[in-house]
Amino acid sequence: MTTPQQPAPRKKTGRRPGSTDTRRVVLEAARAEFAVRGYEKASMRAIGRAAGVDAALLHHYFGSKDRLFLAALEFPVDPRVVVEQVLAGDRATVGERVATFVLTLWEQPGVLDRLLALVRAAATTEQVAQLMRGFVLEELVRRAAVELDIERPELRTELMLSQIIGLAMARYVIGVEPLASATREELVPLLAPTFQGYLAGA
Amino acid sequence: MTTPQQPAPRKKTGRRPGSTDTRRVVLEAARAEFAVRGYEKASMRAIGRAAGVDAALLHHYFGSKDRLFLAALEFPVDPRVVVEQVLAGDRATVGERVATFVLTLWEQPGVLDRLLALVRAAATTEQVAQLMRGFVLEELVRRAAVELDIERPELRTELMLSQIIGLAMARYVIGVEPLASATREELVPLLAPTFQGYLAGA
Repeated sequence: MTTPQQPAPRKKTGRRPGSTDTRRVVLEAARAEFAVRGYEKASMRAIGRAAGVDAALLHHYFGSKDRLFLAALEFPVDPRVVVEQVLAGDRATVGERVATFVLTLWEQPGVLDRLLALVRAAATTEQVAQLMRGFVLEELVRRAAVELDIERPELRTELMLSQIIGLAMARYVIGVEPLASATREELVPLLAPTFQGYLAGA
Repeated sequence: MTTPQQPAPRKKTGRRPGSTDTRRVVLEAARAEFAVRGYEKASMRAIGRAAGVDAALLHHYFGSKDRLFLAALEFPVDPRVVVEQVLAGDRATVGERVATFVLTLWEQPGVLDRLLALVRAAATTEQVAQLMRGFVLEELVRRAAVELDIERPELRTELMLSQIIGLAMARYVIGVEPLASATREELVPLLAPTFQGYLAGA
């Protein structure tokens, strides 16, 4: 993430993008703008204006729209990392990389709670579902499609996502056993062929 | 379902199990009992008592506990049918049967709304998640495990379920394209190998 660790130099006019207070104001403005206009139509300019922060500074400190979105929704994973480090690379082992990445990610402190909160919100609030849809399409599915040399790459990427979402629901929300207590080592060999099939064919 | 289409003969004492009014009272009592005691510990006797209906009549009109549960939660599919008609039978084509069954089921009027309501409720209410967990384990996973001649049949059945839940979430709740608009004919060939892998091995 590009959010700053040190405060920016103090200026007379406008908010300091680096301060904790400004960060909070910017993220609130971003959530409001994304909620009202959706991911595709939301603009950095409008968010900066609402937060009283110069658009150039906003870009400098919060990066691009997708990064501001991830920060605003406290998204625990950056789709660019997923595409570049997981989906790209040796196609023969992509299924195993996806399975290992997902199961490892969920074991990081705080990640699972945040992901499940997003899935719950999407399941109950059409506005959140619509935001997720726009974001997933623009930032994950389209990027992945460029990397995948296979027919119907968008559909296949979404089937991979559907298995990941369902796995989180069954393992952590419904918590059905033995799936809930199965170890990563037990699950990777069973899940890898599923992801491999979606992303690289039979 | 064993719920009666015609009213039972009128009796002086107790409620008539066949009347619409009694059906409503019984289902309310069942929901309360399942909510308080969970699926495994809920008893037909207690439900009958709460509803003022004789236990033998309750059994006669609403069948066994699992059928009363399905009726109380307005569950749109009977796991026995799934196990007997879909999971049992020729193992070489089980993946395709599961994919076709699920996608066809969701096209039936009212089925999808009810299933999504259950998934939403499970995602937001621990009590419902716990009920689903108990029911899925007792009535689907254990039955399926008996039919499947493969290592770790419970875990594999639950992985199949996780793909079905995630598919419903991605296709219908988040509604991401092109998955949301893909036809059954497009999806079955992509999903069949996943289910086949879980239920019958590579």
